[in-house]
Amino acid sequence: MAHENLKTRVVGVEIGLETTTTAVVDVRGNILAKSSFATGDDPNVADFTSKLSENIVNLVEANGGYEMIRSVGISAPSGNYPLGSIVNSPNMPWKGVVPMAAMLRDRLGLAVALGNNAYVRAIGERAYGAAHGLKDFILITLGSGMGSCFYSNGHPHLGQDGFSGEIGHSCIEIGGRQCGCGNKGCLEMYTSSKGVVLTAKEVLAESNEPSAMRGVEPLNASQIITFCNDGDALARETIRRAGVMLGIGLANYASLVNPEAIIITGKLTHAGAWLLDPAEETFNEHVFRNIQGKVKFLTSRLEEDEMDLLGASALAWEVKEYSLFK
Amino acid sequence: MAHENLKTRVVGVEIGLETTTTAVVDVRGNILAKSSFATGDDPNVADFTSKLSENIVNLVEANGGYEMIRSVGISAPSGNYPLGSIVNSPNMPWKGVVPMAAMLRDRLGLAVALGNNAYVRAIGERAYGAAHGLKDFILITLGSGMGSCFYSNGHPHLGQDGFSGEIGHSCIEIGGRQCGCGNKGCLEMYTSSKGVVLTAKEVLAESNEPSAMRGVEPLNASQIITFCNDGDALARETIRRAGVMLGIGLANYASLVNPEAIIITGKLTHAGAWLLDPAEETFNEHVFRNIQGKVKFLTSRLEEDEMDLLGASALAWEVKEYSLFK
Amino acid sequence: MAHENLKTRVVGVEIGLETTTTAVVDVRGNILAKSSFATGDDPNVADFTSKLSENIVNLVEANGGYEMIRSVGISAPSGNYPLGSIVNSPNMPWKGVVPMAAMLRDRLGLAVALGNNAYVRAIGERAYGAAHGLKDFILITLGSGMGSCFYSNGHPHLGQDGFSGEIGHSCIEIGGRQCGCGNKGCLEMYTSSKGVVLTAKEVLAESNEPSAMRGVEPLNASQIITFCNDGDALARETIRRAGVMLGIGLANYASLVNPEAIIITGKLTHAGAWLLDPAEETFNEHVFRNIQGKVKFLTSRLEEDEMDLLGASALAWEVKEYSLFK
Amino acid sequence: MAHENLKTRVVGVEIGLETTTTAVVDVRGNILAKSSFATGDDPNVADFTSKLSENIVNLVEANGGYEMIRSVGISAPSGNYPLGSIVNSPNMPWKGVVPMAAMLRDRLGLAVALGNNAYVRAIGERAYGAAHGLKDFILITLGSGMGSCFYSNGHPHLGQDGFSGEIGHSCIEIGGRQCGCGNKGCLEMYTSSKGVVLTAKEVLAESNEPSAMRGVEPLNASQIITFCNDGDALARETIRRAGVMLGIGLANYASLVNPEAIIITGKLTHAGAWLLDPAEETFNEHVFRNIQGKVKFLTSRLEEDEMDLLGASALAWEVKEYSLFK
Repeated sequence: MAHENLKTRVVGVEIGLETTTTAVVDVRGNILAKSSFATGDDPNVADFTSKLSENIVNLVEANGGYEMIRSVGISAPSGNYPLGSIVNSPNMPWKGVVPMAAMLRDRLGLAVALGNNAYVRAIGERAYGAAHGLKDFILITLGSGMGSCFYSNGHPHLGQDGFSGEIGHSCIEIGGRQCGCGNKGCLEMYTSSKGVVLTAKEVLAESNEPSAMRGVEPLNASQIITFCNDGDALARETIRRAGVMLGIGLANYASLVNPEAIIITGKLTHAGAWLLDPAEETFNEHVFRNIQGKVKFLTSRLEEDEMDLLGASALAWEVKEYSLFK
Repeated sequence: MAHENLKTRVVGVEIGLETTTTAVVDVRGNILAKSSFATGDDPNVADFTSKLSENIVNLVEANGGYEMIRSVGISAPSGNYPLGSIVNSPNMPWKGVVPMAAMLRDRLGLAVALGNNAYVRAIGERAYGAAHGLKDFILITLGSGMGSCFYSNGHPHLGQDGFSGEIGHSCIEIGGRQCGCGNKGCLEMYTSSKGVVLTAKEVLAESNEPSAMRGVEPLNASQIITFCNDGDALARETIRRAGVMLGIGLANYASLVNPEAIIITGKLTHAGAWLLDPAEETFNEHVFRNIQGKVKFLTSRLEEDEMDLLGASALAWEVKEYSLFK
Repeated sequence: MAHENLKTRVVGVEIGLETTTTAVVDVRGNILAKSSFATGDDPNVADFTSKLSENIVNLVEANGGYEMIRSVGISAPSGNYPLGSIVNSPNMPWKGVVPMAAMLRDRLGLAVALGNNAYVRAIGERAYGAAHGLKDFILITLGSGMGSCFYSNGHPHLGQDGFSGEIGHSCIEIGGRQCGCGNKGCLEMYTSSKGVVLTAKEVLAESNEPSAMRGVEPLNASQIITFCNDGDALARETIRRAGVMLGIGLANYASLVNPEAIIITGKLTHAGAWLLDPAEETFNEHVFRNIQGKVKFLTSRLEEDEMDLLGASALAWEVKEYSLFK
Repeated sequence: MAHENLKTRVVGVEIGLETTTTAVVDVRGNILAKSSFATGDDPNVADFTSKLSENIVNLVEANGGYEMIRSVGISAPSGNYPLGSIVNSPNMPWKGVVPMAAMLRDRLGLAVALGNNAYVRAIGERAYGAAHGLKDFILITLGSGMGSCFYSNGHPHLGQDGFSGEIGHSCIEIGGRQCGCGNKGCLEMYTSSKGVVLTAKEVLAESNEPSAMRGVEPLNASQIITFCNDGDALARETIRRAGVMLGIGLANYASLVNPEAIIITGKLTHAGAWLLDPAEETFNEHVFRNIQGKVKFLTSRLEEDEMDLLGASALAWEVKEYSLFK
């Protein structure tokens, strides 16, 4: 007693399309050490998992040791928490259902939890960020796609099979833009990076006004945001239209969920007020009247490069401790 | 001990636009007695509440007595469960925030809970109907408007202030039909009774085909359903279009919530397969791919005239017992 | 749609030391059909499980058919809900950890849940009996041993590994009567059938008063209760002492848990007020002062031969639906 | 938007018998500033509350300002969380039910939550200490009395009226030592500071062995612990006996609750292994056999003077944000 070996650290993992990062994190969300490697495009997931396992073991041994680590949390694209698997990812090199949590647990001998980007960020913002103390909120990710997670009375909503939060594939315009998912009019075709670029092309075609966007090929969302900040009127109009679509989509969402706040994360938030002001204004026009003006629009309070790692670490605390070796 | 006076019955109340009904219900959802009176349009809510209180006392005294009653549950249009109030009802004679639960509790000396139609029905279907055993499901009401409630991991989702589930006022068509709420393109303008009538007019205007709907003034949804069953092609087209819009709206909802089932209730379900087949088909085209074909489409298993009363009785069991007189 | 095959029945199973009973039960707790067979003492649990499976299939086929059955719930001595297993039962013929739920699921192709006696009864009383509407209560079983389950804010408390509720093995008298579990002074050595018999012997030895209990060998708790009701003073003293020990044990329990009610079930409750009056009186002397007089003492409102079957059926609704064949 | 004024700090308050301390704490449990004043023995609770309010306002204004503060949490002896009140405190100068949370909220215009010592510490250990990541655990306070709180599946168990956890007043010895609560044999009469002193007197009376405890008047628990560490055999025997009683009491508790860990806090833990080794040993002899050797015995990982403040701050995040002035 008192001699009890309390494990006071976890490992957070962010599997990104390009880079995979691991971190040792303590109880209060301090990142003690970090390490990265290229995710690669090897379709052999066993090789990737072995590489990930090795990376974690090395990091951990160099920073306090294996016996202080309680468990591991992973943020992965198309991650499914109840299954602990990456499921039908359109972007990762591994197809179908990949039981990454079980595969890593077998290599490390530690409990492993896995969730998608939005799920993990929601847990992270609640533990250490803008959602601390909130029981009902929505977290949005705006990047190459659009994802979300919402909390219901203090718990992240999972649904029957852990496939909830797919706001990016809600239909905002019947018969609208073709989405990679096979449907038309999906919200993310208007509010994600690729959606913004499509809108830019429409905006450019509609007028003869000069714009820094003209002739840039390929044009991407970051450039548009830069032009926007530089005063380019058509770039601003592009972002404004994304904001309007975002506002309507979030109003529909909030009318269903009645959140205290909506936390918007992801690269597109670099557009700041150019995106978020029209979004909030449109939101309040469209949301159910009893909650108009009551939903807080927030951005993350976490560093962009810590957001997913902190979320993954907070997820790691959710699973039961388990060790092959104790 | 053993002499303990266990209260084994509750009162369920359904406040409808025209009729208010009260019922004494036992633990297992048997309605033991019922009584009704005209809701009326008296803007004085205190008078209505006194009438309701009297009705309950009379019913209860004639059926086993007051001392067997544990609590009271109310289904009311625009009801808000956390507030126990009717809030900004567009249809009831009482405006603003009406604290009906507290008013009735003061008259009866019993705990009173109140929720809106959809919330109460969801609780009722879970206790006694098609949602028994489900942890994540959506319940839809399709009547003069469109409402909903969803369960998150075994609990009805309320949100920050109890104003969740407003699917009827999600925007399904940007700049679409004008809704009474002030916005355009609200889903209920396509899928509720009034929406169906508007669609019928469009359908009639688009063709010269003969139809029983022509010349009927005012035309209502019940008639259209009857014509539909009688083989009227334009009536069927009208209902089919409502089904398509319903399917898209529910797909958006289910992509967010990932329910095991969607339970559709209300008068419009009398249209049966004419409405529900296109709805289910469109739903599966639009819902997020990982749950396509996995969400059960269900109608209520409760009698139409018991659905709200049973739900209200199930709600009554949710509140803490309380008595002025014990 | 509407054609959806909703499963509206479950099977409840009570595995008793002597008899195993199965029942088909509907949503509202009506037992539609029942069947029994001798549990036997065959140490081969696979044989028992096959017999159980056959019994269920026959019952179900003769009463509405397999396709109406959603899932199966089992009440088993020493049952552990999270493991779905019978664990270290001192009384059943099967030793160690018996994964009964998985074994039966493999034979039936249906989801199966399993819990111990007290856990299952608590769920049953909440669904259909005296605990309906209660969020915090304790259920006690008083039979050959003593068990319990308590609810925490509307959910049965399980604890880390599902081994909670072992009130029978709390120490009520340091260095007291030797219990079969290896310890001394366990509460069930004073309040269960065997405890009552031990007390009777003490009571008889302490005085020369005549008593119907004298010379009866072996004496059992049912006889003592009968003598008690017949006016036998020493039998009454015996039961009174059990009541006092029960009252202290429950006071300790309630001071930890602060329940709205304690529901006492099992054969010993046949002693009625002879047991429960001294129990309640002692309870109120010993329980933490802020809740004195506030905890309801209740007995079950369910038939004795339905209590476990209804509980098992209610448990069956808790598991996710699953079918090998759909 | 983005301009949204997110409140990122809370105030934690510890009302002690002698000193009241307030602290400004951030999201991650960093104490940014602290202030104290003498609690005093003025029976006028309004005066005390005004003094407390003033202390908070001054502290807050000097450290970042009022507009950063989201809410306030209070640790108070005999605090009741659902009532937000101090109830029938045997030690504080204010008698009966003192609605401290409401009184302070009215003065500050901020949401205020209040709980007792054990409840607040449990929340604090889960947020920032030894219980991080645990879903089922028991926290014990061992000081002038003995209190506790346990978690049920990730939530602190409150019970029907918030009066749970009173392990100190469970009866460990029928007819044993007289307790101030009116009963005999309460556990805290053996395991708290006062209990240890009573045991010391018994130990001294039983033998003629020399001991530093002899002749010390008044003898207190701190001295006994010091003597113990100095090698005094009778002091060690005194503490050992407290450990044995603690072990039995905790075994009874754990057999009901099945925790992953028991966290023991309070001044008596300064006795270290002299107390905790016999406690753990006795615990494992008495606890229900299926969990023997599985329950972790832990002490707090928080600084003794931060434990209650951090717990109070964690409690502050649990209440809904509220402001008179926004």
